[in-house]
Amino acid sequence: MSQAWKKNIRKVVPYVPGEQPKRKVIKLNTNENPYPPSEKVTLSLEQFNSDCLKLYPDPDCLSLRQVLAEYYGFSTENIFVGVGSDDVLSVAFMTFFNSDKPILFPDITYSFYSVWADLYRIPYRKIPVDNDFRIKKEDYYCDNGGIVFANPNAPTAICESVDFVEDIVKKNPGAVVIVDEAYIDFGGTSALGLVNRYDNLLVVQTFSKSRSMAGMRIGYAIGNAELIKAMNDVKFSINSYTLNQSSLYAGGEAVKDDEYFRSTVKKIVDTRERVRKSLEKLGFCCTESCTNFLFATHATKPAGEIFEALKEKDIFVRYFNLPRIDNYLRITIGTDGEMDMLIEALKTIV
Amino acid sequence: MSQAWKKNIRKVVPYVPGEQPKRKVIKLNTNENPYPPSEKVTLSLEQFNSDCLKLYPDPDCLSLRQVLAEYYGFSTENIFVGVGSDDVLSVAFMTFFNSDKPILFPDITYSFYSVWADLYRIPYRKIPVDNDFRIKKEDYYCDNGGIVFANPNAPTAICESVDFVEDIVKKNPGAVVIVDEAYIDFGGTSALGLVNRYDNLLVVQTFSKSRSMAGMRIGYAIGNAELIKAMNDVKFSINSYTLNQSSLYAGGEAVKDDEYFRSTVKKIVDTRERVRKSLEKLGFCCTESCTNFLFATHATKPAGEIFEALKEKDIFVRYFNLPRIDNYLRITIGTDGEMDMLIEALKTIV
Repeated sequence: MSQAWKKNIRKVVPYVPGEQPKRKVIKLNTNENPYPPSEKVTLSLEQFNSDCLKLYPDPDCLSLRQVLAEYYGFSTENIFVGVGSDDVLSVAFMTFFNSDKPILFPDITYSFYSVWADLYRIPYRKIPVDNDFRIKKEDYYCDNGGIVFANPNAPTAICESVDFVEDIVKKNPGAVVIVDEAYIDFGGTSALGLVNRYDNLLVVQTFSKSRSMAGMRIGYAIGNAELIKAMNDVKFSINSYTLNQSSLYAGGEAVKDDEYFRSTVKKIVDTRERVRKSLEKLGFCCTESCTNFLFATHATKPAGEIFEALKEKDIFVRYFNLPRIDNYLRITIGTDGEMDMLIEALKTIV
Repeated sequence: MSQAWKKNIRKVVPYVPGEQPKRKVIKLNTNENPYPPSEKVTLSLEQFNSDCLKLYPDPDCLSLRQVLAEYYGFSTENIFVGVGSDDVLSVAFMTFFNSDKPILFPDITYSFYSVWADLYRIPYRKIPVDNDFRIKKEDYYCDNGGIVFANPNAPTAICESVDFVEDIVKKNPGAVVIVDEAYIDFGGTSALGLVNRYDNLLVVQTFSKSRSMAGMRIGYAIGNAELIKAMNDVKFSINSYTLNQSSLYAGGEAVKDDEYFRSTVKKIVDTRERVRKSLEKLGFCCTESCTNFLFATHATKPAGEIFEALKEKDIFVRYFNLPRIDNYLRITIGTDGEMDMLIEALKTIV
């Protein structure tokens, strides 16, 4: 057989997500929330009328957009929802980054940005963060085809101020600036307050981290109505019906339980600060974290070795064998019990 | 404000799905199944442990691929799953149609094909079906960048034989041929039996029609392992985690209840043939249908007028105001009760 069809296969280098081990381990490698979703979510699924599954979901996802609009003080026309923030970011890249000029993002950041740019053939330039892993905003005051950065940034955990974000948005009126706020609820201040003042700002958030719903796949973007309409046009050119009936329903219920949301976020932040101190006692140094993870390096023991030693003890953290950060570990904040076991394990390793 | 960012927005003409009316109507416009999903699906959701939602779903969707592999007699490496067959087809277009030569599809077919081609800037050529709306296979024996057609075709409802499909696949060893079998279970014979013999054949099916799960968003493709790997590489370059925990679980349960699946499919086929006769008595002419819908034209009354008159009576069918088919209605097969009401309404209209 000729197999000539092979030459037309799209060449890609896919993103590699953190391992999802099938057996029971202490899983601190994909920044999931250690606490289950709100009881309202459990209840909504128990009461879910599966008969409705015979019908397509609302392609406009209005019920969920309404809940989010109300929660954040916007109108539904300011809200786009998708199958996790990866879906939302992917649609945003395809919608807004169609210039011949390169888009800009930090060299150390969520590694999916370059994957999407490659996939959609978007030219890009990685801008080095400084030696303390801080984004230098002045580097983004130049001609470009768009800007995307995570705030707090990952895997560095560092958060910049709203003023910092505003400066970048203000200096780039000709480009869409996407701020990926996947981790914002764990200590940062969101740029959502800028949305009504800057029509080129798109803020992306997710249910996967602070709302304990990674398994339900819900992400959203908030921006001015024109940005959101453009994203919806592209979404309706890919897949009319993205979020399924159960996601739309359970997602709305999750947002309504604000008290639970705040209490679990607080628990994670408290655990994080306690663990940071324990790590420092063991010779680790961590960046200041506004996320549900710590970015840690050890004074003497190489990160790669610690990663392997922990894995042998069935404790999974994330290690990126990449320039500049290959001596760091990204450690998700689990329950207090899980983190105690991590600390005990590290005591024998380092 | 400059709004110069607007010039870089991707220009698209999105697909327009059939209306999803919020109020109670007789809904025969989006080819949904009138029967609820299997009780196994209901049970799986009732027993669903929502705690697992805190974790990402398996990015490889293995549990569902295993169930499908077993059901259809393939290996998991032959199965790709996505968020409805639209997601699967969209990924397939992006993965396989990267030639400078045009891809080919019928002029009358699922209107999303040209939307994806436009979105991904794939050159394409629409090949007219004949005056009886039949695809002429010889038209596809020419140099091309890929082929896609629905079998049974939509909205014509006409199904071609496996030999017919094989001829097209065999004559095009240099191109990937995608056969969109969304409606195959309602009377056609699937091309799945050809997959092991032709490495350029991709068969796409869905849970949205015959499995009563439009609201859950599950579609799949079956093809040789190299095709599936290429699709997964692209999928992992867009969104690592697509199907959520509840879809993976409930989807598998749906497939396991083969008896229920066969019984509802049979009911729909029986209703379809009964309705066809009633429509013919009223002066309609229908194509031969191997789907869960009828494609009907009336001897004297224009389709557009019938469509509007039915809508006034809260009966929604689909009308495409497009060349060649603008005097046809696409009528989804509902329950016997719904179809009786349709026939009664038509009696007063035509």
